[in-house]
Amino acid sequence: MYGIFSYGIASPRVGLKHGQFILDLEIVSLLGYFNGLGIDPAVFAQPVLNDFIALGKPVHQRIRQRLRELLSAESNSFEGIHDQVFIEESRAQLHLPIRIGNYTDFYAGIHHAENVGRMFRPNGDPLLPNYKHLPVAYHGRASSIIVSGTPIRRPYGQYLDIDNKPVFGPSQTLDFELELGLVIGKSNSLGEPVRIDEAEEYIFGITLFNDWSARDIQRWEYQPLGPFLGKNFASSLSAWVLPIEDLEPFRLEGPEQEPIPLPYLQHARPSYFDIQLDVMLTIPGQEPVVISQSNARFLYWSFAQMITHHTAGGCNLQVGDVLATGTISGNTPGSYGSLLELSWNGTRPLHLENGDTRTFLNDGDTVTLRGRAFSRGIRVDLGEVAGTIQPAIYPPVSRIPD
Amino acid sequence: MYGIFSYGIASPRVGLKHGQFILDLEIVSLLGYFNGLGIDPAVFAQPVLNDFIALGKPVHQRIRQRLRELLSAESNSFEGIHDQVFIEESRAQLHLPIRIGNYTDFYAGIHHAENVGRMFRPNGDPLLPNYKHLPVAYHGRASSIIVSGTPIRRPYGQYLDIDNKPVFGPSQTLDFELELGLVIGKSNSLGEPVRIDEAEEYIFGITLFNDWSARDIQRWEYQPLGPFLGKNFASSLSAWVLPIEDLEPFRLEGPEQEPIPLPYLQHARPSYFDIQLDVMLTIPGQEPVVISQSNARFLYWSFAQMITHHTAGGCNLQVGDVLATGTISGNTPGSYGSLLELSWNGTRPLHLENGDTRTFLNDGDTVTLRGRAFSRGIRVDLGEVAGTIQPAIYPPVSRIPD
Repeated sequence: MYGIFSYGIASPRVGLKHGQFILDLEIVSLLGYFNGLGIDPAVFAQPVLNDFIALGKPVHQRIRQRLRELLSAESNSFEGIHDQVFIEESRAQLHLPIRIGNYTDFYAGIHHAENVGRMFRPNGDPLLPNYKHLPVAYHGRASSIIVSGTPIRRPYGQYLDIDNKPVFGPSQTLDFELELGLVIGKSNSLGEPVRIDEAEEYIFGITLFNDWSARDIQRWEYQPLGPFLGKNFASSLSAWVLPIEDLEPFRLEGPEQEPIPLPYLQHARPSYFDIQLDVMLTIPGQEPVVISQSNARFLYWSFAQMITHHTAGGCNLQVGDVLATGTISGNTPGSYGSLLELSWNGTRPLHLENGDTRTFLNDGDTVTLRGRAFSRGIRVDLGEVAGTIQPAIYPPVSRIPD
Repeated sequence: MYGIFSYGIASPRVGLKHGQFILDLEIVSLLGYFNGLGIDPAVFAQPVLNDFIALGKPVHQRIRQRLRELLSAESNSFEGIHDQVFIEESRAQLHLPIRIGNYTDFYAGIHHAENVGRMFRPNGDPLLPNYKHLPVAYHGRASSIIVSGTPIRRPYGQYLDIDNKPVFGPSQTLDFELELGLVIGKSNSLGEPVRIDEAEEYIFGITLFNDWSARDIQRWEYQPLGPFLGKNFASSLSAWVLPIEDLEPFRLEGPEQEPIPLPYLQHARPSYFDIQLDVMLTIPGQEPVVISQSNARFLYWSFAQMITHHTAGGCNLQVGDVLATGTISGNTPGSYGSLLELSWNGTRPLHLENGDTRTFLNDGDTVTLRGRAFSRGIRVDLGEVAGTIQPAIYPPVSRIPD
């Protein structure tokens, strides 16, 4: 996995996660280990991965091959200079790895969509009529995406009190959402849709993504134009981006799509991935507790379908854009990807150790999302994305004339 | 008004619109006319206004004062070098003036919201319950915002046919939306809301904005998360940005807001502006026809309220962000800001000259939005934003295995 790190007086640069260490790719490059690959070492001396990503898949493939040789058990490439090229991850500062141009959030977790439908439209079909015809999505706020570990300030906002009267105060129903983020690795021009059979070429890699949500604010504001302040106070991205190629061993046929999607959304090959996802909740003074276990296989729409649909009208994706999947809930209560679902909108509190309960997040709570994949002896770790809730700070108010 | 222009082999740079001419601020700066103002001339040699905008209002004020002196009727500052510092606008190429980080679209035109409600929820209150309590908005797509004059390709997309069956084809109901865009001139940090009495300090200037909309695509996709492909194929921004200070003579008390908004949204001074807005439709081979005349005074929510609400939960605005107002319709049929309203969802075709009619836009049609303000002998022109509809191109389709 690639990321951006700094340490001591060294400026942010590109690193490769290697166990508990980070391989400093700027140093590796300056020492000549990438000679002959046709790469400007300056791409590794950047505070974001965008220039590195923009090199494109053929170059990434050459770097990957070279790194595999350098890091193989038999190699003694870094003998004697281990401390020069490796740094312990625990000693490094990790940075938001991408300069994110635009951020889009899908709604591709069908069990999440069904659960929300059951809660809020109990007398209708849990899915809206469009759900199985197109990957529903909305544009989100890119500027408030922050790196794992950044504290999450509970937002103020407007919502209805118990008497259905609008009030302005700290959100009372702060939640997480278990998602994956796709990092776009190739740009398409405005007006040039991406065919589904080439869509995965536009993915550089994937990250863990927590789309923090203030349910009370969201519920009051979202009609008719969708979520706004209920989401835009913060979203957390993991510090490490896993190249999509690393997921090849975990490729799956997806769910049966019935009705069959329109031709522009039809796959010619398996386009889903078997990625195990965990949610851990840590409340102050306690050990972390796993409160949910889900899997990327529960997505109804594939990564490829998301990209092809997004660009179908000509919208231009750009290197560094993030497309998040939407909440990935499984089909059982222990696999739901949000507290909204786990507590069934606050009606079924989660019972934790020591008699603690939770419906939504309290100040001081930490949510950590983790991902990993196993198959036939191959293991890939997606790392984690974590955030701790800080108390709301009373915001500045206007000076109303007396 | 400020913008970005190029001509001949000269690279894009900052210009000031001055009648039919553009004053080349890079040259003016290099010739020393801004000496003593403490400005790095490099800000004028950029392909976007962002660095210039980031200088901040005190510096803009000094530049404005200096330019006023240089351009006054009595001045002979540019005598003998007129051709060096001025270029005819018609000979210049105009560029998208801003590198837009994030784009937000509000829904602040109350008559538009009421008209949409009357059309699509004929048996209910035309306004949804939240409308008068908060400025409803959604995040839009920044990457597909293009400069005035760029052709608009009719998008393909998914929508329901007359049998309510989803199909994929060129939008049949392509529309414009008459809006203003605010260009953000000052960043707030994540977690730091902007008070309403300081909100206007965050506005650099305003532009004309056309939020092209594919109504059929939008209608099928927008539940429950809002507009996506119905909007993100293109939005047009004018080439010139009018500093907000130029609107001072046109300041107005706004509409009575009843119910009174919550304190964080309460104004201490008039915060609306009297700006006349026109929509012209030009169909191939015909003269332009004015099809609507509206005014920014019809906005229910002020610019200041939009900014304060947007940041109320801590969302960080950044220099170069664009906040659009939403469609500004007046309270009479001749003042509606979209064809959706002007043709009442296609049921009342507009009759143009020569027997032509329109419900939505045809290929070849040009829509031009114009804005200007007059008050006590002062006139300010916002220029125009124009775009011509090009036919859909059949997009690449997936190769489905035989």
